[in-house]
Amino acid sequence: MTSTDIQTLASGELLHTRDARGVHWLTLNDPTSFNTLGESMLAALQAALDRVARDEDARAVVLGAHGKAFCAGHNLKEMRARPELAYYQKLFAQCTRMMMAIRHLPVPVIARVQGVATAAGCQLVAQCDLAVSVDTARFGVNGIDVGLFCATPSVPLSRNMQPKQAMEMLLTGGFIDAAEAQRRGLVNRVVAADALDAQVQQLVDAIVAKPRVAVQMGKQLFYQQAEMGIEAAYQLAGQTMACNMVHEVAQEGVQAFIDKRNPSWRL
Amino acid sequence: MTSTDIQTLASGELLHTRDARGVHWLTLNDPTSFNTLGESMLAALQAALDRVARDEDARAVVLGAHGKAFCAGHNLKEMRARPELAYYQKLFAQCTRMMMAIRHLPVPVIARVQGVATAAGCQLVAQCDLAVSVDTARFGVNGIDVGLFCATPSVPLSRNMQPKQAMEMLLTGGFIDAAEAQRRGLVNRVVAADALDAQVQQLVDAIVAKPRVAVQMGKQLFYQQAEMGIEAAYQLAGQTMACNMVHEVAQEGVQAFIDKRNPSWRL
Amino acid sequence: MTSTDIQTLASGELLHTRDARGVHWLTLNDPTSFNTLGESMLAALQAALDRVARDEDARAVVLGAHGKAFCAGHNLKEMRARPELAYYQKLFAQCTRMMMAIRHLPVPVIARVQGVATAAGCQLVAQCDLAVSVDTARFGVNGIDVGLFCATPSVPLSRNMQPKQAMEMLLTGGFIDAAEAQRRGLVNRVVAADALDAQVQQLVDAIVAKPRVAVQMGKQLFYQQAEMGIEAAYQLAGQTMACNMVHEVAQEGVQAFIDKRNPSWRL
Repeated sequence: MTSTDIQTLASGELLHTRDARGVHWLTLNDPTSFNTLGESMLAALQAALDRVARDEDARAVVLGAHGKAFCAGHNLKEMRARPELAYYQKLFAQCTRMMMAIRHLPVPVIARVQGVATAAGCQLVAQCDLAVSVDTARFGVNGIDVGLFCATPSVPLSRNMQPKQAMEMLLTGGFIDAAEAQRRGLVNRVVAADALDAQVQQLVDAIVAKPRVAVQMGKQLFYQQAEMGIEAAYQLAGQTMACNMVHEVAQEGVQAFIDKRNPSWRL
Repeated sequence: MTSTDIQTLASGELLHTRDARGVHWLTLNDPTSFNTLGESMLAALQAALDRVARDEDARAVVLGAHGKAFCAGHNLKEMRARPELAYYQKLFAQCTRMMMAIRHLPVPVIARVQGVATAAGCQLVAQCDLAVSVDTARFGVNGIDVGLFCATPSVPLSRNMQPKQAMEMLLTGGFIDAAEAQRRGLVNRVVAADALDAQVQQLVDAIVAKPRVAVQMGKQLFYQQAEMGIEAAYQLAGQTMACNMVHEVAQEGVQAFIDKRNPSWRL
Repeated sequence: MTSTDIQTLASGELLHTRDARGVHWLTLNDPTSFNTLGESMLAALQAALDRVARDEDARAVVLGAHGKAFCAGHNLKEMRARPELAYYQKLFAQCTRMMMAIRHLPVPVIARVQGVATAAGCQLVAQCDLAVSVDTARFGVNGIDVGLFCATPSVPLSRNMQPKQAMEMLLTGGFIDAAEAQRRGLVNRVVAADALDAQVQQLVDAIVAKPRVAVQMGKQLFYQQAEMGIEAAYQLAGQTMACNMVHEVAQEGVQAFIDKRNPSWRL
């Protein structure tokens, strides 16, 4: 983070700062629990994502973590203490709401993976729009090792890699390394630990250089069309692109391209 | 197979044994025909899969083959002898029923690929939940070489790799080697022939170490959610995971994790 | 092209020749504009694809380009000159109609990529059934650089690679090289420039050696079933395959296989 004008929006188990460009940095900060997604961490994440959603000048979210692990998934102690169907239904609904909030945000969410990502922690990486990982990170959906199939993690995981690849992880609890995660499509970039921030910054810089409105329209369209047949997908994409093109940012961007100059956008 | 308590459930063109752990070993045993899926082989496979479905203590299926080829697909001589639309409709329906029985089984099905897998033989690999292959195996959907587009094989094939990759195989009849099949996602692991059984055994051991009920719920959920939009997928996955969590196997598994001991499951 | 009997069907910004085997060679021929898809180029492509659709002896299409670039996407000057929503809606509808004409053609369409493919140019590659690329080609969907998210290109792109891979390209405007495009599934084969024609020819030769009717049934089935649940997909595929099998080309092909001779097809 190079910006000098940084706001602190939350602290404690979830750090939340916002830099002057509108980039929100969320950092899981419960390293002694390996950043497990207990009820309070889920609530803190939801609150932070809701804050981002209300920030009309937000441009991107970087979701990182402190400590050795990125995120070890649900808090098993909490879960064991409440052996009730209604409790688990509510817990997974809460978790799903948070995961879908990542998707519904108008700005891209980049996972900054500095360590192992397990179960719902791996789901968190899969659910983000982009992911950068250190080369030593490992990824697993190993709930099955305690008799709990990673059902909700399988939702974004199976949308990030081929089915047999996901099935092996889900059935055996086996882990894959960062290079393999990249080959499969679960992460975009893999770097040495000392290059992680620079690599994340590069993605952030690329995104904040584009007009927010175009990124917003694009992110929403991308996931909507992916669930449609190709004919309907093209109809929606064509409408979206026409609306984007008629907008002043595209008019200026295209004019700047024709004039061989940089666009002058208020981003 | 290391178990000493092995039941023979069928012999002839399809060997079927069951070990003491509930692992079913199905072996295509018609090497002179390259294990083609003639009517009787399809019926034998259906009967064997039905037996597995009735075995409440089944834990996994390993589907292998004897001889040089894994499976050369449909029996073209049989097909040529009955040039009738109704016959072919019935034949492909019979084959589809068997393929879908693999999917509907409550236990994982692992393809053990010791040789070439062609047309419906390649479909069989694609349809299994997991696959281990020797490094010399090759994979093709080359019905087009005799003027018959591999339509039914294209169904699971196009769900195991990217569309252009599948299309090239289907249109040209060209083969891919095992390493390429792994890169694309058609097989999970590729090993030398003398390591094939150990590699299959490793997967089987990993699976039978997990509670059957969690594997069953997970397998069913995995394929159901894959055909849904992400919102509906998450709803179903959350319900599944809550039901799994309230089950005694997960309660014991999670408690064992907290206690830093192995779970004591009756598997 | 080795055929001696070549018809010229169109010239100017889009060359269109047909060889004696029924292979249509479409070549974008506006190198000074980097083969942008302006209104007239889109109309010329539509007309050419319509001609192919009417040619009952057509067997394949090769879509290539002259000059340094394969295709640089839409014509931004034309677009800037008409800042009207209705114009853009019509333009993207025209482009979509052309892209879907590639899919609806009864014969395979092979992209021959000799240079950079950008925005709707990258979409064109993604939309083709198969693609061969020179090793120096690069692929990007960088409309976002001028404030215009590549919405319509994202439709086939997200059906050719994993979502995070597509999302990075769409959000950052970054390019991938040909080797990476092949690893992801966007192109089938990557070769040195002096081997491009031979590699394309090899694919064409493989396709024209198969019966047109089987290829036609297969191409149509492939894309239809890909949008269905697996049960419905299998039903359609089984019906398609039964219809294909009862056809004289499959009967002859299978008989030839049994007789260990080449099929005698009137292709």
